[in-house]
Amino acid sequence: MGPNLLEIKQVDTPQQGPADVLIRVEACAVCSSDLSMMARPWKAQPPYGSFIPGHEYAGTVVALGETVDEFKVGDRVAVEAHLGCMRCRNCRLGHYTACLNYGKKGHRANGFTTNGGYAQYVINHVNTVYLIPDSVGFDEASLITNLGCVLYGFETTGGYIVGDHVAVIGPGPLGLISVEVAKALCAGRVYLVGTRASRLQVGEALGADRIIDATKEDPVQVILEETRGIGADLVIESSGGNEGPQMAIAMAKRMGKILLLGFPDEPVRADFSLLGKDNKHIYTVRGEGWANCGRAVSLLASGKVNLRPLVTHSFPLDSISDALKTFKERIGGAVKVVVKPTAN
Amino acid sequence: MGPNLLEIKQVDTPQQGPADVLIRVEACAVCSSDLSMMARPWKAQPPYGSFIPGHEYAGTVVALGETVDEFKVGDRVAVEAHLGCMRCRNCRLGHYTACLNYGKKGHRANGFTTNGGYAQYVINHVNTVYLIPDSVGFDEASLITNLGCVLYGFETTGGYIVGDHVAVIGPGPLGLISVEVAKALCAGRVYLVGTRASRLQVGEALGADRIIDATKEDPVQVILEETRGIGADLVIESSGGNEGPQMAIAMAKRMGKILLLGFPDEPVRADFSLLGKDNKHIYTVRGEGWANCGRAVSLLASGKVNLRPLVTHSFPLDSISDALKTFKERIGGAVKVVVKPTAN
Amino acid sequence: MGPNLLEIKQVDTPQQGPADVLIRVEACAVCSSDLSMMARPWKAQPPYGSFIPGHEYAGTVVALGETVDEFKVGDRVAVEAHLGCMRCRNCRLGHYTACLNYGKKGHRANGFTTNGGYAQYVINHVNTVYLIPDSVGFDEASLITNLGCVLYGFETTGGYIVGDHVAVIGPGPLGLISVEVAKALCAGRVYLVGTRASRLQVGEALGADRIIDATKEDPVQVILEETRGIGADLVIESSGGNEGPQMAIAMAKRMGKILLLGFPDEPVRADFSLLGKDNKHIYTVRGEGWANCGRAVSLLASGKVNLRPLVTHSFPLDSISDALKTFKERIGGAVKVVVKPTAN
Amino acid sequence: MGPNLLEIKQVDTPQQGPADVLIRVEACAVCSSDLSMMARPWKAQPPYGSFIPGHEYAGTVVALGETVDEFKVGDRVAVEAHLGCMRCRNCRLGHYTACLNYGKKGHRANGFTTNGGYAQYVINHVNTVYLIPDSVGFDEASLITNLGCVLYGFETTGGYIVGDHVAVIGPGPLGLISVEVAKALCAGRVYLVGTRASRLQVGEALGADRIIDATKEDPVQVILEETRGIGADLVIESSGGNEGPQMAIAMAKRMGKILLLGFPDEPVRADFSLLGKDNKHIYTVRGEGWANCGRAVSLLASGKVNLRPLVTHSFPLDSISDALKTFKERIGGAVKVVVKPTAN
Repeated sequence: MGPNLLEIKQVDTPQQGPADVLIRVEACAVCSSDLSMMARPWKAQPPYGSFIPGHEYAGTVVALGETVDEFKVGDRVAVEAHLGCMRCRNCRLGHYTACLNYGKKGHRANGFTTNGGYAQYVINHVNTVYLIPDSVGFDEASLITNLGCVLYGFETTGGYIVGDHVAVIGPGPLGLISVEVAKALCAGRVYLVGTRASRLQVGEALGADRIIDATKEDPVQVILEETRGIGADLVIESSGGNEGPQMAIAMAKRMGKILLLGFPDEPVRADFSLLGKDNKHIYTVRGEGWANCGRAVSLLASGKVNLRPLVTHSFPLDSISDALKTFKERIGGAVKVVVKPTAN
Repeated sequence: MGPNLLEIKQVDTPQQGPADVLIRVEACAVCSSDLSMMARPWKAQPPYGSFIPGHEYAGTVVALGETVDEFKVGDRVAVEAHLGCMRCRNCRLGHYTACLNYGKKGHRANGFTTNGGYAQYVINHVNTVYLIPDSVGFDEASLITNLGCVLYGFETTGGYIVGDHVAVIGPGPLGLISVEVAKALCAGRVYLVGTRASRLQVGEALGADRIIDATKEDPVQVILEETRGIGADLVIESSGGNEGPQMAIAMAKRMGKILLLGFPDEPVRADFSLLGKDNKHIYTVRGEGWANCGRAVSLLASGKVNLRPLVTHSFPLDSISDALKTFKERIGGAVKVVVKPTAN
Repeated sequence: MGPNLLEIKQVDTPQQGPADVLIRVEACAVCSSDLSMMARPWKAQPPYGSFIPGHEYAGTVVALGETVDEFKVGDRVAVEAHLGCMRCRNCRLGHYTACLNYGKKGHRANGFTTNGGYAQYVINHVNTVYLIPDSVGFDEASLITNLGCVLYGFETTGGYIVGDHVAVIGPGPLGLISVEVAKALCAGRVYLVGTRASRLQVGEALGADRIIDATKEDPVQVILEETRGIGADLVIESSGGNEGPQMAIAMAKRMGKILLLGFPDEPVRADFSLLGKDNKHIYTVRGEGWANCGRAVSLLASGKVNLRPLVTHSFPLDSISDALKTFKERIGGAVKVVVKPTAN
Repeated sequence: MGPNLLEIKQVDTPQQGPADVLIRVEACAVCSSDLSMMARPWKAQPPYGSFIPGHEYAGTVVALGETVDEFKVGDRVAVEAHLGCMRCRNCRLGHYTACLNYGKKGHRANGFTTNGGYAQYVINHVNTVYLIPDSVGFDEASLITNLGCVLYGFETTGGYIVGDHVAVIGPGPLGLISVEVAKALCAGRVYLVGTRASRLQVGEALGADRIIDATKEDPVQVILEETRGIGADLVIESSGGNEGPQMAIAMAKRMGKILLLGFPDEPVRADFSLLGKDNKHIYTVRGEGWANCGRAVSLLASGKVNLRPLVTHSFPLDSISDALKTFKERIGGAVKVVVKPTAN
């Protein structure tokens, strides 16, 4: 891996530590952060050439550390990326995705600061591994960090939304999953805002009650009109666009909540006066915290959320560059693209 | 009252309703929102000429509505501005300062949508009145909405800060009170950021552990250095300056909280990427919610917070224009300026 | 109404106040508290002979107070019992079912302290009325306080239970609804404990994953075994039996939550040492607080919870004594029994 | 140590692991659980003869594990007892005192499941060590787990109590510290209930506004009378007596909170009907969770809480039996008794 370059190399199979699990990777999904890390190294990212990215993966347990009795060889498992140092104050209090020793003192974020899942074998601490039932396929399971991230977002904003009106901005993977989760948690009306008709239709199929094509309607106006001038109880901004934060602020109700799953790379303008006068709050998430990947497995197993429609393409490991390109350029309507390191 | 004009008029004494209390105003403090409302009408503000502003006041009970037994004539009382409609969903759930029927259906925000305290007599619903002990003077009591607002902010962000490091930006009245409350609630280290040495010294006298003159030091750098690179657990932005939100985001720790007590009038740039990647949250307050004015009275009575040093000037009602000017231009080091409608 | 006596009387149609709605009652469900109140007056209950009980009802709007524009004549509506005084500290903070002026100063709890729904017409404050869609029948809508109460319980204990294991003790109406809500909110495994096979089967049909007949198995042992010795994340005790609290404590996990929807009339023994050493908490609910009846309407409208199977019998108003007898003695497998005051 | 027997033995100095700190114990306070563990082994307690109890201690760092840079040799430190396995779901979420692998898989609770502080040297994981400033003496610092436990209780019940009325039952060490913390956190009126005049006087000196001698007054009646029939916002039961839970339930207000710091060894009767009808909740704490020992250090350093008056006696290690007897029998008005293993 180098700047905008991925190489396939033969490396030694990693050795699990006493509390680790060695996993044969069956599927590893492409995330936009993979592309970002290839373009410019992230904080605590190992040097190009010595580092295997990929943090959304699932596979089969092939070896266990000496203290591990939570799993057995042959178990089908999904993972979460973040271990945390389990030593700083944030980790100690359960906020391990916001570890204060990021990249140090035993902290691991597989695919970010330690080797990840674009490989045949990967090591995970037992903390970060979840058994999946036979009904959940590896492709779907590789998206568990996505679902875990969205669930962490809902939990961060309270998590109890029965009857609440939810607006989702941006029909990317996290936005589409947000629609599904909002419906699963018994939201009232779910709005989905986007600019591409095809993606909005995917959202409608996944349960959105009202899709708003921002190229044709004013999303803020639509939501205010359809909520009798009140606005949405919860707004989830996942577009990452420059207009996202301000649109989210504008469409939230008085005392409403805004959750940022995406954000612009650069500073953008926002009207904090409107935020403040109407007593709205902005929440963020880092990764898939508070063990929500475990909750995600349960949700997939129950069938209440279905991630299979999001996996539109898959490639073998030696075509990883095609996989990244397909994802990046949304070739063939790509939503999530999966790499299969051990497929034969 | 007209655009940038206040007139003293003789009007009828208002009549209390069945659940109201008629109060003789002893002190009414000037707030920057009074000036803003004179310049341009706020939402649901009655027409100039028919409206008495002033929402920070204290006084003596002179008459009771027929159902009121919570008070008796002669009681010394402080008030909160917001009644709420007690009928919309927000009011029903206790969020009456964010009433969805603002200005309608029985909602009252004295000094904003109904007559306020720059008068000899004012009516308050029994919900919005608090008995004050003899040890609390009327001048100090007139600042109870300020203290209630700050307390509402602390409660909104969790309210439990023992040992936490708190950074306050802006040594205005709310910022200075925030310093006092942070110390009263047993914060660890309290930082106060400002640009005027005199105000920073007031903050130091009120308990700030470290004052940072932003004209001489970089506040973000100072706080990171003095917290071993971690940042502040809670940042309270009360300057209302254009740089405030971004500075607050930058100095909060991973998983830290940001409270906006002030905000710029216009949209400003902020780095939501930094906010999101470090899992920080932004909270706001509208007014003095969740009955925190009652808590404020207790805090004053205990002596743990002292608002007297903030009342630097007072004027009789017929000099109200001088009062506003003194406040606005900070003449004589003015912090809070009080108008005394019934002084003789 | 007298001790254990209900009389049908001709009375004047009540007059709505300015913020009230006059409702023609279409269905009023029998609750066990109706029977309790007939046996011995509850706190603040009006004298026998002057009081109409019934707090679980739905109907049609027939007249509006002068300030009411939230509804129109002809609207089909459900209600909640508790208005609160909207004046005490608890009401002000949103806890109106725990009003500190219970029975005084404008407080109303229809069917408890003010006239209820065993009548052709009843008055409700606009705060306590919810529009129901055509898809929700009046019989089902009359159970909305039940669903609102259960939802209030879930919200009280956090409300976010994706993947959590929930144990429900007692397959009465609230217990059965708890099973439905737990599944709707995406719980993991839902256990239902009871002693009557027929009721347990209803629970299984409504979604319980595992029914436990306490006459044949030890519920605590079953749950510990099936959770690898950990226990349930949330235990909902709704049996009201003398063994209920202790059983709930014993089957909750370390750091688990216990919700009491029912409770024994008399003091019973419980092992607070076990509660404390394992850091478990006990929560209770009074009525259907925090506007959860509104959420309940949304949940019924979505079809995610279905209360129709619980309405097993209905009677006209003049057979109300039969209705009470059928409910009390569970004649014909009665679960909920509905009285229809205006059926023809 | 055997049943009711403590022996002084010469043992090897323990060896710190990579993330451990070796501490020379300067003071170790006697806790009633020490006596309980001597009488009958607790869960996961090592066999008598191979186990050193003592979980309330402070000392000096004498050696560091190879990864530890958070401390240096010579640092004066306080500790918390519980490490947790940092691997089960509870630990992962920050609830390490309620570890699901109690006594297994790396879990440590020094003085409970691993060796404790009645020794010259003890090993602590870096997670469980806190630097103390020079102003805090070792005797006082040895009580930090007590203060941490009380703080954990306040945090568990919300932690924001400005102006709230707090009732504390039982003037033992935790009760007395609860009085101090309630005042430090700006409670309104603090009541202290007990049966021994001398201990009540200590409570009064530490800040209790109203002491209630239960042998002379009815505590429930006193509190209801002095709160206008409303009851206490927060009741802290720390007596551990059989009447404690019921008394706590009876004196809490509607929607009030009850915190159990102590509990009877055997099941006792409680009126769950009263608890439920008035919407009260019961919270418990296990140990000194959520890193509150860190907050405790800050509170001691600030001087807002003072534990020195509670340390009434101290003994050298070879008089440990006298120490336990003095504590148990409250000889000479003993409150907390400290053992000094390395004093010369």
